[in-house]
Amino acid sequence: MTITRIGAGPRMSKAVIHGNTVYLAGQVADAAKGKSVGEQTKDILQQIDAILAEAGTDKTKILSTNIWLADISTFAEMNAEWDAWIVPGSTPARATVESKLAAPIYTVEIMMTVAR
Amino acid sequence: MTITRIGAGPRMSKAVIHGNTVYLAGQVADAAKGKSVGEQTKDILQQIDAILAEAGTDKTKILSTNIWLADISTFAEMNAEWDAWIVPGSTPARATVESKLAAPIYTVEIMMTVAR
Amino acid sequence: MTITRIGAGPRMSKAVIHGNTVYLAGQVADAAKGKSVGEQTKDILQQIDAILAEAGTDKTKILSTNIWLADISTFAEMNAEWDAWIVPGSTPARATVESKLAAPIYTVEIMMTVAR
Repeated sequence: MTITRIGAGPRMSKAVIHGNTVYLAGQVADAAKGKSVGEQTKDILQQIDAILAEAGTDKTKILSTNIWLADISTFAEMNAEWDAWIVPGSTPARATVESKLAAPIYTVEIMMTVAR
Repeated sequence: MTITRIGAGPRMSKAVIHGNTVYLAGQVADAAKGKSVGEQTKDILQQIDAILAEAGTDKTKILSTNIWLADISTFAEMNAEWDAWIVPGSTPARATVESKLAAPIYTVEIMMTVAR
Repeated sequence: MTITRIGAGPRMSKAVIHGNTVYLAGQVADAAKGKSVGEQTKDILQQIDAILAEAGTDKTKILSTNIWLADISTFAEMNAEWDAWIVPGSTPARATVESKLAAPIYTVEIMMTVAR
């Protein structure tokens, strides 16, 4: 089974494809960093759409998702964006917990395993 | 490789089967929510038995497990239930860390990847 | 697809091989426990090299990595060791977040999924 890396930097790759499974790095906001949890979530989900397209797949094939919130009291705010984005009937196994992230400007991080 | 979803809600699925691999959502206590860490762990492990059966597998085929405790000082209390449930010789790769969970009534969350 | 377990203890295994995918348990420092984050990270990465060798693979085939730091302000210190160890061009999808670990002597934990 071949390994294909997308956006392979010196520290990590954006995504790694192994056979029919795609592992995405934990994504944090780019344009929306420092903004609200809702705006960061929307930004992250747009980035994920782009990475999934590059990997030859899409959001209907997500297998598993981990979400970290710097403050778990923002759970509903994150979910509002998630629920608007995810495709009903094609939802992944998911876990959401609270953890501080790499820098205070980041309040949401999302990591996924996806089929292709 | 086909994708089969178990308990596919609008936000997440209870489990997603991809080929020979089953991804379970993070499970929290249902009947035992708000009770002790030991009772919540036992409740979660019973739920997992049911989901694994629905996915056509069982606890002897767990590959990897993530456990989150709202308070890491309850590590031994969770482990007492885990050790009584897991099958010696068929134990998964596991990591347990502290994170606050979606609501204060939940003190343990367990997520798994399982073969079938 | 066969399941092969490495270091299968009564509670968890060091690694579990399922077909072409290897799931490693969250590794914490052994010799370096209680020492600096840099020393613990170096110790963990050496342990991982040994487990990967036992599983018939190596660090050029890491697919995905989760890193937990007991204190996220040690992010740069951990990364210095990581960057010296990881093979450029063969970097995994990665997420690093803050969580307290099983005991205060542990300040870094690393979990991986690896191809073989």
